[in-house]
Amino acid sequence: MTLPVTLKHIKAAAGRIRPYAHPTPILTCAGLDTMSGGKLFFKCENFQKAGAFKFRGACNTILSISEREAAKGVATHSSGNHAAALALAARLRGIPAHIVMPHTAPEAKKAAVAGYGGIITFSDPTQESRRSTLESVLEQTGATYIPSYDDPRIVAGQGTAAAELIEEVPDLDLVIAPVGGGGLLSGTAIAVSELSPTTGVIGAEPVNADDAYRSLQEGSIVPSVNPQTIADGLLMGLSQLTFGVIRERVERIVTVSEEAIVNAMRHVWERMKIIIEPSSAVAVSAILGDELDVAGKRVGIILSGGNVDLERLPF
Amino acid sequence: MTLPVTLKHIKAAAGRIRPYAHPTPILTCAGLDTMSGGKLFFKCENFQKAGAFKFRGACNTILSISEREAAKGVATHSSGNHAAALALAARLRGIPAHIVMPHTAPEAKKAAVAGYGGIITFSDPTQESRRSTLESVLEQTGATYIPSYDDPRIVAGQGTAAAELIEEVPDLDLVIAPVGGGGLLSGTAIAVSELSPTTGVIGAEPVNADDAYRSLQEGSIVPSVNPQTIADGLLMGLSQLTFGVIRERVERIVTVSEEAIVNAMRHVWERMKIIIEPSSAVAVSAILGDELDVAGKRVGIILSGGNVDLERLPF
Repeated sequence: MTLPVTLKHIKAAAGRIRPYAHPTPILTCAGLDTMSGGKLFFKCENFQKAGAFKFRGACNTILSISEREAAKGVATHSSGNHAAALALAARLRGIPAHIVMPHTAPEAKKAAVAGYGGIITFSDPTQESRRSTLESVLEQTGATYIPSYDDPRIVAGQGTAAAELIEEVPDLDLVIAPVGGGGLLSGTAIAVSELSPTTGVIGAEPVNADDAYRSLQEGSIVPSVNPQTIADGLLMGLSQLTFGVIRERVERIVTVSEEAIVNAMRHVWERMKIIIEPSSAVAVSAILGDELDVAGKRVGIILSGGNVDLERLPF
Repeated sequence: MTLPVTLKHIKAAAGRIRPYAHPTPILTCAGLDTMSGGKLFFKCENFQKAGAFKFRGACNTILSISEREAAKGVATHSSGNHAAALALAARLRGIPAHIVMPHTAPEAKKAAVAGYGGIITFSDPTQESRRSTLESVLEQTGATYIPSYDDPRIVAGQGTAAAELIEEVPDLDLVIAPVGGGGLLSGTAIAVSELSPTTGVIGAEPVNADDAYRSLQEGSIVPSVNPQTIADGLLMGLSQLTFGVIRERVERIVTVSEEAIVNAMRHVWERMKIIIEPSSAVAVSAILGDELDVAGKRVGIILSGGNVDLERLPF
């Protein structure tokens, strides 16, 4: 099957974002190697600008739109990492970013978006209100809508993280990425399968938000309905675009419990001395439990982000 | 004045510990650059083995003792990073490490020492009990006492961190390190003053444990009496060895409040997504306050360690 995003798009994205995005470090940890039995390579997108891989896709997309479009700015609805990433990427291009956020969003998230110069419009916390508020922002401003994952330019941007990982650590047996809407996992799957065909790609998902797992089982998209998980970056369901890629290029999806996520997060904080958010810990917990055996394997893990509220830690 | 530790000793230490210690990364942070007005380079000893720079000195000293001494093992009293560092360094040489700890020490510290194979002997939490318990351990075992800072081999080992920093970032205006007993600060001062004579060295100390500051003021060692600070790695007073070096080679000591320490710790966690312990935050807080102006300067900061109890965070 011809995919809507190819290695060519990821390479173009890598060239486009290079002056702006960090080429994030890859860390190892003897303690976690011992715990898992594998040799682990952590791609640290928690050190990415705005604290998450989302900056890659946002930056690639903003740099891909025309001068004429750019002049009117960009817009999205998001209360998470995509909002901050888009605001920062827009500022770097010198254009306005209109961000629709529910008024109930954490103050820290509002402050991050405002700190990057994003223009916030508050909505009610319902999907309907967020959508209609975005519609009226788009109408009033003429801004270009940049979705958080359902866009080939976003997927290509997110794939640049795994491309850097494969370039630096070429002989991996597996690469694991968390899956929510599927932008990161589908970009990762394209990059890895094209650059290193013998490397398997595995998604990791909270069992309490296992719509991607069930979508693969059923062969069609299962929507994400009221998921209850600490991994607040993984609440969205797959789109046709991301589902199509994941079905073709991802070996399997491993689901993990809330307890396993918190334990993995704690292990990374304590052993590696780095801050990762719960969504990143989902990928780590996949290799610390019983479901996936990585003994003797070389495993790349995408640590997707490090934005946590220090006032509300799970430990 | 001829110092008891020279660059030659630090270079020898660097060669000795190279197969065991991590050459820790140096990170930068645009957000903290903006806050401070300077260009900051963070030497990440929080990523060092056993989670702190202490491994460097412990490893150098353990590798410096004779086969005959080594056969009977090493011993120390410490409830902190030196205990874990010594236990790990001893294990790497394949010799026993006897660690005297107060029975009141946090469970996490006891577990860390035991996890590295250290043989723990508990004492009462008084200085007198710790000292007498160590005496009897030394008598019974014939082990070699390895102090936590008052030893030229320890100071030389700690100096290797700054030597790596200067090698990688040669044109610094200042290097800042926290000061407790002075092992890290004196090793840093020797390495920096010899390798980069135009670079100033500054110590950072909690105002609630400002014995090193007062020692420099008075020209003789002021003991550390019942200090009350969150920076639990900086409770000890200077020794003749460390005081002598610091008086010769350190420009000044900046003191910081408890509130400034916690704020700096929080900024590093939130902006840099790395975990540092309060003692490291002392060095960071020195450049975020009013007392030390680093505007336009290139500043190296030794992040001394990352061992924190996640159950008892100050935020």
